[in-house]
Amino acid sequence: MKLLEDRIREDGQVLGAEVLKVDNFLNHQIDPDLMMALGEEFHRQFKDQKITKILTVESSGIAPALAAGMAFHVPVVFARKHKSLTLKDDLYTAEVYSFTKKTANQIAIAQKFLSANDKCLIIDDFLANGQAVEGLIDIIEQANATLEGVGIVIEKSFQKGRKLLDERHIKTVSLARIKAFNNGQVEFEEEA
Amino acid sequence: MKLLEDRIREDGQVLGAEVLKVDNFLNHQIDPDLMMALGEEFHRQFKDQKITKILTVESSGIAPALAAGMAFHVPVVFARKHKSLTLKDDLYTAEVYSFTKKTANQIAIAQKFLSANDKCLIIDDFLANGQAVEGLIDIIEQANATLEGVGIVIEKSFQKGRKLLDERHIKTVSLARIKAFNNGQVEFEEEA
Repeated sequence: MKLLEDRIREDGQVLGAEVLKVDNFLNHQIDPDLMMALGEEFHRQFKDQKITKILTVESSGIAPALAAGMAFHVPVVFARKHKSLTLKDDLYTAEVYSFTKKTANQIAIAQKFLSANDKCLIIDDFLANGQAVEGLIDIIEQANATLEGVGIVIEKSFQKGRKLLDERHIKTVSLARIKAFNNGQVEFEEEA
Repeated sequence: MKLLEDRIREDGQVLGAEVLKVDNFLNHQIDPDLMMALGEEFHRQFKDQKITKILTVESSGIAPALAAGMAFHVPVVFARKHKSLTLKDDLYTAEVYSFTKKTANQIAIAQKFLSANDKCLIIDDFLANGQAVEGLIDIIEQANATLEGVGIVIEKSFQKGRKLLDERHIKTVSLARIKAFNNGQVEFEEEA
């Protein structure tokens, strides 16, 4: 998506070989007009899937997921992150390992918000190693709901998350796909 | 706001004398169409204030704040919550005590996202004892920015947050104002 790639080139900050900081429009300060455009693009890409629910993980996933929810007019559920949970009776939970922070968290969604009739679209801000998305897929499976696809704002294609999803034949749409960082510059994948 | 009061009556769950659970449309599962309507109402109430920035706290504040940002077409910044922070050089921080969880957290906003020229609108999902809002006001003062107002989705008027803001002559607009919970029923304040 050219609008997003241009914004990443303009405002993104490359830190080392693997980190892109986009805290001025995506995950600390948020550009609402850009979010709206991203949400509409997710809708364009997944509108034939009859999505009934959008899932994401707090906090950075909430903005793009809500924007998508506005385009689909379906509820958005964000999984809560916890260090650990004792009471689990009415929750679906999954373990998510963060390579960035080198810690494991549990994510949880109340069971009442996910049913076997749901056709789910997962939305997240970043796809790197795919741990958060895998956790949400685990939860969708626990609920016997259907995963219709995964929509990502920024994918770092050189990390393993995209490959894992492709191997499982999951429809994955990333609005910006980063091939590599070269000398502080972002190199995008060619559009298919 | 009648739309919101009706939704609280229909889907809200009163727990004891002080707690209202609205996790089916506001702070776990989110109704995007309702958020859009709330955002437009905040814009209607504060459109003469020439707002340049909307501030909130993760995670539950993000959805109504983003919806407001879409109506104002200005950036939304959400403060991050931390247990404690060591590196603080480029952050504004404030201490926020949670009466619900009985723990203190620090909230932080990167200094680069708030300047003396900013006219800020604080948006949050709940106003109870006002601790989160006070923390954001503290940060606005550190940045020498201007606080133009506070927009709240649900106010529990019987707790002290609203009184604290009124005493400081801060323009505060709560879209639903709860006077009391009586036998599991929500009693709203009369509209002014």
